[in-house]
Parts: sequence; C-alpha cells; structure tokens
Amino acid sequence: MKKTDVVIVGGSAAGIEAAITVQKQYKPDRIIVVRKEEKALVPCGIPYIMGTLGSAEKNVMPKALLGDAELIVDEVTSIDREVKSVATAGGETISYDKLILATGSRPIVPPIPGADLKNVFTIRKEIDYLQQLQDALKQAKDVVIVGGGFIGAEFADECRKMGLNVTIVELLEHCLILNCDEDFCIRIEDKIRETGVQVNTTCRVKSIVGDKKTEYIECDKGIRFNADVVILAVGAAPNTELARDAGLEIGKMKGIWVDQYMMTNDPNIFAIGDCAEKFCFFTGKPIATRLASVATREARIAGANLFQPRRRRNQGTIGVFGTMIAGTAIGVAGLTERAAKDFGFDLVTGEAIAVDKHPGAMPGATELRVKLIFDQNSRKIIGGEACGGATAGEIANIMAQAIASGMTANDIATAHVGTHPALTASPLVYQIVKAAEAAVAKLYYIEERVNAILSHKSWTS
Amino acid sequence: MKKTDVVIVGGSAAGIEAAITVQKQYKPDRIIVVRKEEKALVPCGIPYIMGTLGSAEKNVMPKALLGDAELIVDEVTSIDREVKSVATAGGETISYDKLILATGSRPIVPPIPGADLKNVFTIRKEIDYLQQLQDALKQAKDVVIVGGGFIGAEFADECRKMGLNVTIVELLEHCLILNCDEDFCIRIEDKIRETGVQVNTTCRVKSIVGDKKTEYIECDKGIRFNADVVILAVGAAPNTELARDAGLEIGKMKGIWVDQYMMTNDPNIFAIGDCAEKFCFFTGKPIATRLASVATREARIAGANLFQPRRRRNQGTIGVFGTMIAGTAIGVAGLTERAAKDFGFDLVTGEAIAVDKHPGAMPGATELRVKLIFDQNSRKIIGGEACGGATAGEIANIMAQAIASGMTANDIATAHVGTHPALTASPLVYQIVKAAEAAVAKLYYIEERVNAILSHKSWTS
Repeated sequence: MKKTDVVIVGGSAAGIEAAITVQKQYKPDRIIVVRKEEKALVPCGIPYIMGTLGSAEKNVMPKALLGDAELIVDEVTSIDREVKSVATAGGETISYDKLILATGSRPIVPPIPGADLKNVFTIRKEIDYLQQLQDALKQAKDVVIVGGGFIGAEFADECRKMGLNVTIVELLEHCLILNCDEDFCIRIEDKIRETGVQVNTTCRVKSIVGDKKTEYIECDKGIRFNADVVILAVGAAPNTELARDAGLEIGKMKGIWVDQYMMTNDPNIFAIGDCAEKFCFFTGKPIATRLASVATREARIAGANLFQPRRRRNQGTIGVFGTMIAGTAIGVAGLTERAAKDFGFDLVTGEAIAVDKHPGAMPGATELRVKLIFDQNSRKIIGGEACGGATAGEIANIMAQAIASGMTANDIATAHVGTHPALTASPLVYQIVKAAEAAVAKLYYIEERVNAILSHKSWTS
Repeated sequence: MKKTDVVIVGGSAAGIEAAITVQKQYKPDRIIVVRKEEKALVPCGIPYIMGTLGSAEKNVMPKALLGDAELIVDEVTSIDREVKSVATAGGETISYDKLILATGSRPIVPPIPGADLKNVFTIRKEIDYLQQLQDALKQAKDVVIVGGGFIGAEFADECRKMGLNVTIVELLEHCLILNCDEDFCIRIEDKIRETGVQVNTTCRVKSIVGDKKTEYIECDKGIRFNADVVILAVGAAPNTELARDAGLEIGKMKGIWVDQYMMTNDPNIFAIGDCAEKFCFFTGKPIATRLASVATREARIAGANLFQPRRRRNQGTIGVFGTMIAGTAIGVAGLTERAAKDFGFDLVTGEAIAVDKHPGAMPGATELRVKLIFDQNSRKIIGGEACGGATAGEIANIMAQAIASGMTANDIATAHVGTHPALTASPLVYQIVKAAEAAVAKLYYIEERVNAILSHKSWTS
C-alpha cells in the first residue's frame, strides 16, 4: 500500500488547484493526484480547439502546475473510509490522511432517438474524443449544435470559423437564457446570426436520423436540419458514484454534499468542483453552477482547510462568467433579473452604454453596455451583466467584488475607479458607475412615490 | 442679474459631471455652467491628440453631456458670498443658491532659464494652444519632454508615433516613480527605450538654450539634448485664486479645503476636482492626486449633497490610474510599496505573472503581471499594480474595489472571479488571486517565525 498525506481524485482544474493550495498551505510530505488522463485539458479552452487553436495539444494544462505532487494515471474505483484508503482500477491501494474528491462532471446525453448514431458527439474533456470530433468536423458540411448555452454558442462560433454551415437548436426561448437576461441574449443572437449561423430557439429536437451515421435532425413542427455532425451541448451532471458508494451524502442538485469549508460528511474527505454541491450566495439554496473558476475557488478553500479546519470559508457561489461569441464579449456576475425575480427580490435595475475607450475616436473603441441589478430594500447589488468589448470579462470581476462586499447603488455611484483613453470608458460615462446612477435615480423616484402615498390625506384624515 | 439655483464655475470633467449629477438628484429649475472655453477637451485624451487622434477636434467632450444646464462662455472673476452671486469678465452677475467650484489646475512652469523661449510648451487644456504645439511638432526633428511622469511618458510615446526623435529628461530616479514601484517603472522604461525614445533619469535640466526659439537643453554634468520643441510636463497646481479672494479656506496641498461632503467652509459653496484639496483614503492626510476620474467622483458626491447634505460621503482618495505606454498597459490602485513604507505600514507583498488569455496559444495572449501590497497587521490590501495587456486598466478597478471594501489577502485568494479563454487569465493562474496567495504564504511564514520566537526556551525558562 502506498502511504500519503493527501490523495486527490481527479486532476482537472479543481484537482490541480487543490494540489497547489495544499502544498502552499501545509507543505505535506506526499501528495498524490490520481486521474484517468495522462494529459488534462484546459476546460474552458475546449471549444477553441476546433477553430482558434487548431489542436487539442495546444489546450493542455502544463504538468508543472502540480509542483511536487505525484501524478498517477489510473482510476480510483472505491474508497475505504474506515481504513482511509482508495483502490484503483490498476490494482493500487493508496492510504490517505485527507482525501479530496474532484471527480468532475460528465456531459448529459438527452434521451433523443438517434443520439447513439455515428458523428453525434457530446463534449467530453478527453483529447482522443475531441480529436475524433475535430476530424469529423473537418469532413463535414452541415453541423447542428443542440443546446444554445454558452458552451453550445462557443462551439457554434468555432465551427463557423472552420467554414461549416452551422445551426443551433435551443429548447428555451433564447440562447444563453440561463446566463443572461433576455435583452442581452437577443443582442448576442443577432451577432451570431450576422456571422451566418442559424439560430432556432423554442425548438425541440425529436430525433437524430441517419443510416448508422447522422444525416439530419428532426425537430417539432416537422422542421429538419441537415447534420453531418451533431454536437450535444445540453449541460453536465456531477460524477458522484465513487462518493455515493462510499456512503457520502449527496445534495439536492445531485452533487456531493459539502459544508461551507468544502468538507463532506466525513471530516477527512473534501469535495470540490463540478462533483460538489454548490449553494447560492444570495439564498443559500443549492444551485447547478459548474464553472472552472468556481471549481478552483473551492479548491483554494478546501486545500486551506485540510489539516486546520476553517482557515477559509465558502460564503456561497456568486457565479461569475465570461464568454466571447461572434466577436462580442459578455461578462455576468451574480443573479440575472429573471433569477432575482424568481427568488422573490424586489428589484431596481440601472443601465449604461458607452464606448470602452475615450474619446470615441480612439482606435478600437467598442460599445459596451452594462446592466446592474439591485435589491430595492437593501439597495445592494445582486447582479450585473456587461456586453461589448473584451474588457467585459474583467468588468464582470469588478461587479463580482461589488456583490461580494455588499456595495449599494450609492456606493457604486461613488466607487473609486481609474480611467484611461486606451483602456476604459471616459470617467464621465464609465458604465458601472453610470448604471448605478441610473438605479439611484429610480430608487429616489420609488422613495418619493412611497412618501407621497404614506402622506396622502386618506391616511391622515 | 441672472438668477439661478446652481452655478458651476468650470466646465471640464468635474464641472460637467456636477451638472449631470445635480440634474439627476434634484431637477433644479436653472443650472448655469460658466467656463472660459467654448469647447472642453477630454483631459486624459490630450496626449493622444498629437499622434493617435491627429486633431484636437476629435478630443472634444460632447456638449450634450450638459443636458439642461446652460453653458455660458465667460470667466468668473469674483464671488460675493454675502449676496450669493458671481461676477464675470463679460460683465454678468449671476446669483446662486448653491455654487460649485471646478476651476481645475494649471501646468507648473519650472524656474528654468529659457522656459519662455518659443517652442517651449506646457500642457494646457486649450484647443488653440495644443494646435500650436502640434504644428510645432510637425515642423520639428528633435523633441525633449521634461518630466517622465505618466503625462510626459504618454506625450513621448505620441511624439515617437509622429516620427520624431524623442528624449525624456526626468529629475527622479525613474519615470513614473510617483505612480508605480521601481520594478514596474524599469519595465516601462525598457519598453519605452525599445521604441527608440531616449530616457534620461536622475537628470536635472539647467537651462533651455536658443536664439528666440529653443535649440537645445542643457542638463547637469554638461549633457545636452537637441530640442526643436520642449514640452514641460512637471505637474499642475490648483487654480484657487477665485476661492482665495472670496475668503474660502485653502488646504496644506494648496487646494480649496473641503470636508468629506465636498463642502468648503461656506455651506453654500462646494469645490471639486483639481482645484479641491484631496485627502488620502489610508491616512487622511492631504495628497496631490489630480486625475479626471477622481474629479468626476468628487462631482458625483458634491452634486448629491448640494441641497440635502450628507447623501454621499467621500471617505478619501484611493487613487486609481491607468495608462498605456509603448504598447504596455499599466493599472495602479492605492499605495505603492514605497508610499506605504513612507506612511509607516508594515508590508507584505505578493506577485503573480501569467498571460491574460488562456491557454497561452490563444491569439493575442500577453503577459500580465500583478503585485498586491498588504498591511501585515490588518492583512488588508492597501495597493496594487498591474502591467502588461490592455485589461490592466479594469484590473486596477478590481483592485480598487478590493481596497475600498477592506479585503484581506485571504479574502482575495478566495475571491469570486470569472475567467474565459479569450478574456482573462486561466482560473489556475488568475493574477490577482495568485498574488494574494503569494502574500498569504508569506503571512503564514511571518506568523510561524513570530510563534517560534515567542515559544523559544529563553522566554519560558
């Protein structure tokens, strides 16, 4: 039996970051990372293998990131919690003092007839599989992407760059509707269509049809789309078999249950990343956010708490994400307006549009639109969306810090910001600040209306 | 006499933003903005007129920003605080209920012999004057920039783009040394030199020499530089004559004294922007930060407090700035390491370098370096510097929010961030988070050392 201080099961973003953090925090004698793949892919880089990068090899995470942690390429098949050891498919038994589960997620295959035909792919984080997908795309003329979430939209954009005839089929009323509000979705859909990609929303796939190999897909209302290749991008489900078999608790959203220190119901076992249950920053309720940035954050929390609990606490998942589709960047932090309403918040929103450099004659100046969402009662920011130039990604991170620190509309309207002609909007129109000002004006209006009602004669007479 | 609710003296960034804010907050019947210039220039855009924009007209702030505020092109010459009115050079008398002074600053002319020669320019915010400068540059071969602060460095970069032979002469040991720490300054100086600009630091100008018109400048140690044009970029001094003559108090750094609501010692008069005294967020002491982004922030505070005091409070100036010189962006927030040491802080710093897209094979990926500075005792962030790709500007704004909300190194190491291949660094190496992790590791080391000393036998035996 191999003896170690720490075993990490899974070596994608979460597993690697956990290995890095544990080494920094505790300098243990021996850490072993067990993963199935010799090479792990940058998860968010996967769509870009197809067109922009050109090969999966360009999207591999450097092994050097693991530092002094040992990598074993094998599959953990069971956990013995009594003995504190794991067994692998390769016949190894490895004892642990602390165990971190970072087993990730796997693509959901929707129950569509024909989903098992040749040239129907999901999005697996495996080099060989993605190579097959890329080879199939190189031979194809028509490709259908089932699912217009951000992964589906990114794949569509990349396939379009490969010169393919691309169709997105989305069940919901808009692409990206689980990530952004309708107005932002429409803007992105317009941009996608401008590049020649067909976008079909509120459209259900009934079957994938072909002789051994996909030929077309059939949707409701009898609509058909030719499809030499079909990519199923309808989400992912947490890999929890190992945890479940070991008797660890599973949460309502089917992830491994963890407390706010990322500890499972076994104090020697932690779970992080896509396989772990997530809880909403705003409501504490379980949510299904699965992002590499969330996974690595959880890894930094778990890694710090391994041997000295409660060094770091997870106050919940805010959910911050960015993407760039059809040349337009989007950054989102926290709740969308729709989600906030569903949660029962009374909302006030504020919007601002301005170019992202100044004056507008600066080369490369691109329009960037920001919407901020505030709770009417606390006046705190609970969400934000940015759309336009490439700084939208970091602008989402500004919004995230504002959310995490509980800034009010007034706080943001007087936030300390720096501006520069080549780097940001003008200080007179800086989008986040101006969106907050727009919300402040609405809040005053609401206050005046409330005061008017309260002071109305009918109350005092 | 013209009667108004609000008179704003000065219509550059601060004055315009005040007009916008007052209208939003109070909807007064009449606001008058009095400024000397028919057209006001985007202040930070001025260097870019020379090369990138090509003309001052492309750098004018749209008059539409003023909304319903009236613009009077004239000069206010005196304030009658008893009567509550201002008099102008054009013979107008305008009464006010509330007065906002946004009189700005003017370039400092260093006491160098020859500073009055033809083709020696300062940096005035005046279209005609800047046109003369641009015309002189078009005729020139050699230009010397006196002062290697960020304005001087930006002018040098633009003159270089015009094909001129450019020399920077800086009195201090490095360019930008008042804005960034030495290591960042050296990196930028290297980049500037790579573009062919000569950089001479620790170099004092003794005189500007020429027959009516500048021909060369003479520095200490007998060094000479040819100079068909000399640009003096050694800072600016607040315009406070009007305030001083009206008996308003002046601060230690020579700005108009204001309280945390931007109110002068006259409750009906507010002062904002370059003419107003600034106080350090960290120490409360007067500082000489003059930036358009700070000016507009003060305008949003003053504008909200005019008729209903204390709606918004200024908790001090953090100082956030960005620039792009020789193709390299810099973003800085809060204190530099040097300034923090001068203020007596016990420091811990953390650094991280990574490309600003991921994987590194993504097109346009540029190295971006972040340094964060923490107070060893509170563990709170007190400063940050970013250098590299163009997102450094917005990254400074993330750091600023972290400073404003008092985030500790541990908080930042577990910050909620979003990442994307085309927009940010990888979640495994995201610079701000990793710089915080580096600081956390040092803090643990310090803690262990302190514990080791405290538990040493000599104390207990």
